[in-house]
Amino acid sequence: MSSIYLDYAATTPCDPLVGQAMAPYFFERFGNASSPHSFGQSARKALEDSRALVADFIGAKPSEIIFTSGATEANNHAIFFTARALKNKGRHVIISAVEHHSVLEPARRLQAEGFDVSFVKPTADGIIDPPSVEDLIREDTILMAIHHANNEIGVLEPVEEIGTIARQKGIYFLVDATQTVGHIPVDVRQICCDFLSLSAHKFYGPQGVGALYVREGIKIDPWLLGGDQERGRRASTHNLAAIVGLGKAVHLCRNHREKEAKEQSALRDRIIEYVLNNIPGVVSNGHRQRRLPNNAHFAFENISGEELVAALDMAGIAVSQGSACTWGALEASHVLKAIGLSDRMALGSLRISLGRWTTSQDVDYFLQQLKLKVEKIRR
Amino acid sequence: MSSIYLDYAATTPCDPLVGQAMAPYFFERFGNASSPHSFGQSARKALEDSRALVADFIGAKPSEIIFTSGATEANNHAIFFTARALKNKGRHVIISAVEHHSVLEPARRLQAEGFDVSFVKPTADGIIDPPSVEDLIREDTILMAIHHANNEIGVLEPVEEIGTIARQKGIYFLVDATQTVGHIPVDVRQICCDFLSLSAHKFYGPQGVGALYVREGIKIDPWLLGGDQERGRRASTHNLAAIVGLGKAVHLCRNHREKEAKEQSALRDRIIEYVLNNIPGVVSNGHRQRRLPNNAHFAFENISGEELVAALDMAGIAVSQGSACTWGALEASHVLKAIGLSDRMALGSLRISLGRWTTSQDVDYFLQQLKLKVEKIRR
Repeated sequence: MSSIYLDYAATTPCDPLVGQAMAPYFFERFGNASSPHSFGQSARKALEDSRALVADFIGAKPSEIIFTSGATEANNHAIFFTARALKNKGRHVIISAVEHHSVLEPARRLQAEGFDVSFVKPTADGIIDPPSVEDLIREDTILMAIHHANNEIGVLEPVEEIGTIARQKGIYFLVDATQTVGHIPVDVRQICCDFLSLSAHKFYGPQGVGALYVREGIKIDPWLLGGDQERGRRASTHNLAAIVGLGKAVHLCRNHREKEAKEQSALRDRIIEYVLNNIPGVVSNGHRQRRLPNNAHFAFENISGEELVAALDMAGIAVSQGSACTWGALEASHVLKAIGLSDRMALGSLRISLGRWTTSQDVDYFLQQLKLKVEKIRR
Repeated sequence: MSSIYLDYAATTPCDPLVGQAMAPYFFERFGNASSPHSFGQSARKALEDSRALVADFIGAKPSEIIFTSGATEANNHAIFFTARALKNKGRHVIISAVEHHSVLEPARRLQAEGFDVSFVKPTADGIIDPPSVEDLIREDTILMAIHHANNEIGVLEPVEEIGTIARQKGIYFLVDATQTVGHIPVDVRQICCDFLSLSAHKFYGPQGVGALYVREGIKIDPWLLGGDQERGRRASTHNLAAIVGLGKAVHLCRNHREKEAKEQSALRDRIIEYVLNNIPGVVSNGHRQRRLPNNAHFAFENISGEELVAALDMAGIAVSQGSACTWGALEASHVLKAIGLSDRMALGSLRISLGRWTTSQDVDYFLQQLKLKVEKIRR
């Protein structure tokens, strides 16, 4: 088993304080938030406290937050709702070519249903340029989806500028903020978005819970049909302990985010500089400055990324090639192809993502092992 | 806060052993089951161990189990998949009039989309008679959904007989077994169903996780689109700790179910006998024998069930009128109306549901308080 975890972008462990916050809600405070009695009332209070924390953290109102099973559900919900609700207004959707699969696949489904989907190509640095989005807007454009940060190469997108364009044109704007919430400031009013998705397990909360921000005034159809939970916007018994954990995770990030981002970006820069200066035949992917504080991403010549990940795992280091959601696909990542990497280079990719418990010593050991393993594989 | 919890049908606390089983998966064993490294491998193993436990518990194969966010998602998934997949074969659906809202509401959505939905009326005892289902079958019937037990009045339905009919006619059969799994034996082969839904928080597992059984050979479309999780049948990062908890809950029920059912049905019978013999103006709802071991359900004349629930809550007892999912609706339950209760009687309803930690003393105290409160309210 690896002992140095550098794959925080795939999932983070729960903060022990999140675990502590959740524990009572599995046992003595376990009520169904829809029950009339004291157990239910206590559950409802915990639910709404968590909703207020999440809302405040992203500059939203509590009523604008729908708790979901994760960001995949949130993205699916926003996209399919918009398509169904506005199909008589238009059937054109714009997404970036480097979105997460939980945006890409719904968009492809819409294509199969007769919608027209434009894919915005990023620059070689991974940036989605606002003018390149604006150029694609048509009379019948109903939705744009551009993520806040890419999950593979960590590039931050200019979502505020794109959001301003969307608002001016009256086009719904979905921002997948799964990689940014908890790591850099996220404010739905500044971004000018209509929908924003987030996932607790990317910032030290539990897996299986997330949220969809839906701008006030948008009467979204429910994703799941059944009971009246979430003001009729998502049926299903509330995942109470996990929602409490999400709230606690938000609370911790509010207190620690700034300091952590500073520390992690220093370690990240050290990694990037070391690799570029000490290992030949490697490129750093994604814009050098406009990137997540915790993400470094490389492509190595004449290396199988899969082999490199396995070799580092043997040395007790957990890293990945890119998205966990598509591991095993054995295809070059759509993100790396979109920024212009050859298939061969793309298959030599490595993502390092740092987190709350990454130490300087971890990074030292990783860099030493990385150099060794690359040399050994290339020999 | 209530201290005697008799609303296990709404939700159960986690068994402490379930909590213990989950804990490592929030922290040291927290990996993303789709990650390539050791953390991911360990997560995958836990995931598949849990899947094997769940499958075995209901007589299924592991490959027939899709982990979901709960039974609502499972029911929605099965119904909407069938409707989309078979709409060219037929557009007629049969459901019982007493299904849970997570079946009812999807069926109503299908009606709005041009499907024809027949609602099978139960007997006054709450039984869905197989001939009354068979009578409704048409050439264009593509799906029947009859739950294994009703969530309000606890009646067990003859799903094996209905399943045999469905199989003979080549009609897909969905069984919502949310109330039965963990409480009475459930076997998908015996039931002859194509889909079966279950939810961990109804049998001492965590909220926010459940499963959908999909019979081998049915190529179900994914409910969530994105990554390739669950063999492409449900995208989204696995809710690992909760899935481990579901497996542990199944394991515990396998060991304790029989004994618990015996104990609980004795307490249940004591409650029903006491109430019918000692409180005037009350009826017991649902078939007297063919019912869940842990469910007693009454309707009181000249009583507001809401007031009674509140009065008992003040006395430290948590019970409910019926389904938690529709609390606050202030409408008479569709279940009670379907078995022929007047609106007035239906609004005087009370559901008592027992569980793993219900003691004989709890029942004594409850019965004493119930008699007192009914008399006080009627005075």
